[in-house]
Amino acid sequence: MSFLINGELNDQIAISDRGLQYGDGLFETIAVEDGQCEHWHEHMSRLAEGCERLKIPVPDAQLLLSEAQQLFADKHLAVLKIMITRGSGGRGYKIPDTVSATRIISIHEWPTIPTMNKVLGIQLHLCETKLSHQPALAGIKHLNRLEQVLARSEWQDTDIGEGLMADINGNIIEGTMSNYFAVINGELITPEIVDCGVAGIMRAHIIRQAVLHEITVRERNMKIDELLLADEIFVCNSIIGIWPVRQLLDTHYNVIGHVTAKIMNGLV
Amino acid sequence: MSFLINGELNDQIAISDRGLQYGDGLFETIAVEDGQCEHWHEHMSRLAEGCERLKIPVPDAQLLLSEAQQLFADKHLAVLKIMITRGSGGRGYKIPDTVSATRIISIHEWPTIPTMNKVLGIQLHLCETKLSHQPALAGIKHLNRLEQVLARSEWQDTDIGEGLMADINGNIIEGTMSNYFAVINGELITPEIVDCGVAGIMRAHIIRQAVLHEITVRERNMKIDELLLADEIFVCNSIIGIWPVRQLLDTHYNVIGHVTAKIMNGLV
Repeated sequence: MSFLINGELNDQIAISDRGLQYGDGLFETIAVEDGQCEHWHEHMSRLAEGCERLKIPVPDAQLLLSEAQQLFADKHLAVLKIMITRGSGGRGYKIPDTVSATRIISIHEWPTIPTMNKVLGIQLHLCETKLSHQPALAGIKHLNRLEQVLARSEWQDTDIGEGLMADINGNIIEGTMSNYFAVINGELITPEIVDCGVAGIMRAHIIRQAVLHEITVRERNMKIDELLLADEIFVCNSIIGIWPVRQLLDTHYNVIGHVTAKIMNGLV
Repeated sequence: MSFLINGELNDQIAISDRGLQYGDGLFETIAVEDGQCEHWHEHMSRLAEGCERLKIPVPDAQLLLSEAQQLFADKHLAVLKIMITRGSGGRGYKIPDTVSATRIISIHEWPTIPTMNKVLGIQLHLCETKLSHQPALAGIKHLNRLEQVLARSEWQDTDIGEGLMADINGNIIEGTMSNYFAVINGELITPEIVDCGVAGIMRAHIIRQAVLHEITVRERNMKIDELLLADEIFVCNSIIGIWPVRQLLDTHYNVIGHVTAKIMNGLV
């Protein structure tokens, strides 16, 4: 791992940084392949929206890219993480009058992802931990991630590839680290990201792909009963791409069914 | 400001610490007066409960105290902040098998609190930012504080001393940095901390004081309409103690009314 803080090689950050004190910031996790940041503009666009929502100055995307390139120059495959915090200052929630955002860029080894996940599909856990409704934070990738940490701590079984999280009304919104799609009557359904959840970059990319392939996509809520009757399910994020789902509770699904296959092929 | 991380003087923390990455930790803010940490056992008890809820090993309170004493030895009045994070490790929400908690102890100058706040009372803002319902995190003082940062950013007017936050059902739960009490028909009412909010140390202390003074205390929800009809309101936390409320929206209150006075005198 290597880290740059505001352009300087450094793996330590001030304790007074509001990213640590309050989770006062945002992040993006980006796949890097042969010197290219996948979906760079989409990541930068979500980061900018997050900054605007949190009233943090939007960083210069070109500067972030040039700093990131210093770190991944020699990597074939890597994971780039960009964090933007509000910076250091103030004891208390009030945003200090003079504060400048901190940019933290780190590069990580590509994780060892079981190849079987893509081929045979994964088993899903249904998390007890619920997503709370907070429209002010929904969609953006902010640093307040305790709900995801608690949800991910619910299972140790390595046969389980991901956990789905419901909101307080029982709508299944997303995975702990992914979005999901269900195939119902030949249509691709994914939950709206309005009250909670992260508007994933891969989710948006899949929606665009589906439109290109003339697959109808609907954004609407689904509860567990409907998911258990779905024809196909898959989860997605920027690093794993797509993992078809083989099992949720006692229900087994058609792995890499017709629609999932079209989408997976479209992403190659 | 001085800082100890795991017992060593250091004002920098590893970027990989999960406190920064995910807000994966807890904190306590404690008043220190002439070498004494006010309500130390109560703070340690809430911290321990928070650790248990987040599955972080409970730190040794005696060790925390001896480390804190190194920092505030020569201070008459100071603010002690103790943060416990899950420690460094893992890229992803999963808690690594081997991880040891980070303890961060810092000592800060006593803030300049307007003395008028205690005497003349404060004006309250009613925040637009809502508290989301998350029973898994309610009551504890965790590091996911974006809701409070957003709420506190709603006003700049220095005449306003605090902002009240409602939950998504319109129940007024707490202030951005405080709990509150209303006096209605001679009884002291404060919201339940069940779905959201922090179970403040001063709040608990005031409830005990009220019982000693034979003032009836009820924990139940209140909406804005009821608050506007209250006889007295005050906010409280470990650093400010009690601030009577002079104004909320267009309503003016009896400042340091009968019940508030009894409680304020009891705390001296």
